[in-house]
Amino acid sequence: MSANGVGSDAEFDPFNDAEELRALTSALSSFHLYRRAAHQNLTHHRRTSFFALSLAHQALLNKSPINYLPTLDKVDHAIEDNAVLSEAIFRSAVDAFEIDLGATGGGFKAWGNSASDGDLDKVRSTIKQFYRDWSDEGRVEREACYGGVMKELEERFGEVEDKYGSLNIYIRAIVLIPGAGLGRLAFDIAVAGYTSQGNEFSYHQLMASNYILNHTTAANQHTLHPFISTFSNHPTRPSHLRGIQIPDVHPGSLLELMGSDRFSMTAGDFRQAYKDLHPSQKFDVCATVFFIDTAPNLISYIETIKHLLVDDGVWVNFGPLLWHFEEHAQEEQTSRNGGEGEDVGAAGKFELCLDEVLALVEMCGFKLEKVVTGAKTGYVGDEKSMLRHEYEGVFWVAVKA
Amino acid sequence: MSANGVGSDAEFDPFNDAEELRALTSALSSFHLYRRAAHQNLTHHRRTSFFALSLAHQALLNKSPINYLPTLDKVDHAIEDNAVLSEAIFRSAVDAFEIDLGATGGGFKAWGNSASDGDLDKVRSTIKQFYRDWSDEGRVEREACYGGVMKELEERFGEVEDKYGSLNIYIRAIVLIPGAGLGRLAFDIAVAGYTSQGNEFSYHQLMASNYILNHTTAANQHTLHPFISTFSNHPTRPSHLRGIQIPDVHPGSLLELMGSDRFSMTAGDFRQAYKDLHPSQKFDVCATVFFIDTAPNLISYIETIKHLLVDDGVWVNFGPLLWHFEEHAQEEQTSRNGGEGEDVGAAGKFELCLDEVLALVEMCGFKLEKVVTGAKTGYVGDEKSMLRHEYEGVFWVAVKA
Repeated sequence: MSANGVGSDAEFDPFNDAEELRALTSALSSFHLYRRAAHQNLTHHRRTSFFALSLAHQALLNKSPINYLPTLDKVDHAIEDNAVLSEAIFRSAVDAFEIDLGATGGGFKAWGNSASDGDLDKVRSTIKQFYRDWSDEGRVEREACYGGVMKELEERFGEVEDKYGSLNIYIRAIVLIPGAGLGRLAFDIAVAGYTSQGNEFSYHQLMASNYILNHTTAANQHTLHPFISTFSNHPTRPSHLRGIQIPDVHPGSLLELMGSDRFSMTAGDFRQAYKDLHPSQKFDVCATVFFIDTAPNLISYIETIKHLLVDDGVWVNFGPLLWHFEEHAQEEQTSRNGGEGEDVGAAGKFELCLDEVLALVEMCGFKLEKVVTGAKTGYVGDEKSMLRHEYEGVFWVAVKA
Repeated sequence: MSANGVGSDAEFDPFNDAEELRALTSALSSFHLYRRAAHQNLTHHRRTSFFALSLAHQALLNKSPINYLPTLDKVDHAIEDNAVLSEAIFRSAVDAFEIDLGATGGGFKAWGNSASDGDLDKVRSTIKQFYRDWSDEGRVEREACYGGVMKELEERFGEVEDKYGSLNIYIRAIVLIPGAGLGRLAFDIAVAGYTSQGNEFSYHQLMASNYILNHTTAANQHTLHPFISTFSNHPTRPSHLRGIQIPDVHPGSLLELMGSDRFSMTAGDFRQAYKDLHPSQKFDVCATVFFIDTAPNLISYIETIKHLLVDDGVWVNFGPLLWHFEEHAQEEQTSRNGGEGEDVGAAGKFELCLDEVLALVEMCGFKLEKVVTGAKTGYVGDEKSMLRHEYEGVFWVAVKA
């Protein structure tokens, strides 16, 4: 995972761990299988169901304006567009991890179909995330989620640029973004003049961010149909099938302009990756957006954030409290324990209310300087859907005491 | 299922069908097991997780204001309140279905633990539904969902009362409510002076509505904690644990006042139950709220509604298009096929967009007189949660052409 300023974590080597390798190949496999699975699930099953209807019902559904079978053809075309991206991610990840597709034995033939339903779900949600993070249409949601972080950085460090001059602009502040996802916030922070490092645990997100950051050739290169994977709650078929262009900006060109040493991504569990930093490696700011509720043990997250910050370092947070270990099955998480130290799995988990979280942040050695609740935002949502999920995230700024 | 004006469908006899009997006993079992399962899932597992934390982390979480272990004790108390209702539903259903708990062989000992995780999920969601349908706090959501139907009835039939006088007030109109759930809309329509019949397929809903309508003894009889089953997205612990009183009105007293023949509930699939009506049995109005998207084949729903209405009969609808057969696994639905005719399962299913649904309604012999989109409402939601699901339901009034 290193090219165009995207660094790699030297300690992170999935080939040294059978479980890690399995997670890696399942993720790879799922990007490769997207095309086949989507045609199977979205159109093949529906055609079969359609032909199970009475002939009278079939005829009714095939009349204008419904035109049911031609609509399924349009869904197939949309799947093809999405598959171009999914397979580009697959190929760039194969290169990044230096995988020999022609290898015998444990090679692609052995694991090429190993994706679980959960892996395929993650491909679908990753494709939707491009809408939020790397399309023009996603700007509103990005502004709602990332805007507070960018504004806080500007308020705290905006004038450093003048003091140090443009040559040392990157000295403004060094920012870590755990749970960096598709890398947009970390990228935007770098573009704004900071040194930023994103960290991400999920192979799906790592492969997708690697592709979009390092291997796209132009803005608007891909057409995506982010909302085809469900047929529910669409006002119209054009809304269901609508395509958007990604990326809205060409990250490669901007990364080249800013210099490769100002932006990096690391892989793996952030508690493992940042638990033993030399004082010279520490960060001025930690920005967590839709991240803290991925914690089985929030105290260990807070302790890691405190450790990785310089004295008086700043923690900026935005997001809800959808405790992932409550919501999701634990099968996958418990299979990737990071090797040593505290595991990522279910042992020692707990879920707090907002006021308890705020109390805990202070009990763990931070001073809350700002707390804003009630800011409404979606998360990777279709703003045209008849069903919307609305979060009231909490925004806070806490300083290491 | 017959007492205090709640009639029964003579054709519906679960004891004649092994699959129906299994569905019935699993549902019964789940109300009986709620107490044990809730203590197991909500507090026992969390205590185990808590004691897997380091002693330092345990100490931190047990400090004020978090007080983690005392909080779990409070959750246990809240579970006990909910279990009083759950077990009251169990006992009234045992009576309604004339089940001998002491029977040997295939009796309670054989099926008392047969509830699946899905059945237990339904108990949890049914408990939450009491908040929406039968509490004072749920009034806002009821108004948003049912208000349009009540207003339309008033506009169309409001003056009939004056014409026929109070003795024949029930002649205003005869209304069917498919997907009647916990019976509140059907009950409110009866209270407003109409003859109303609710129909419901789910045993969980049937048992719960039977209890609340026929076996409660006073308003505010039960204290419920509708939001304890998830620990995510709560602003405060009092909000998470808050109790509400149900029912907000005492249905038994009101049913007695209005006379038992004006209100009834029927069980089973509405297409089976209403497919062969004599002209004298037909309805003036069909009101569907959060119902049409339970259809695998919407055409068969529309055809049934057209059949059950008198000439010029009125169909009033409100709800989103969350096609249930897309969202849910099909295992349970396909196991209860209603015996004859079209099955309730997956064959011949399709999911339309809103504009296609509206076209289909007219293609199937209705004239749309009103269509209102964009009305926002929750559905059995915690309005204090940091995550809310917001629907833009479609409201329409269609007349049988």
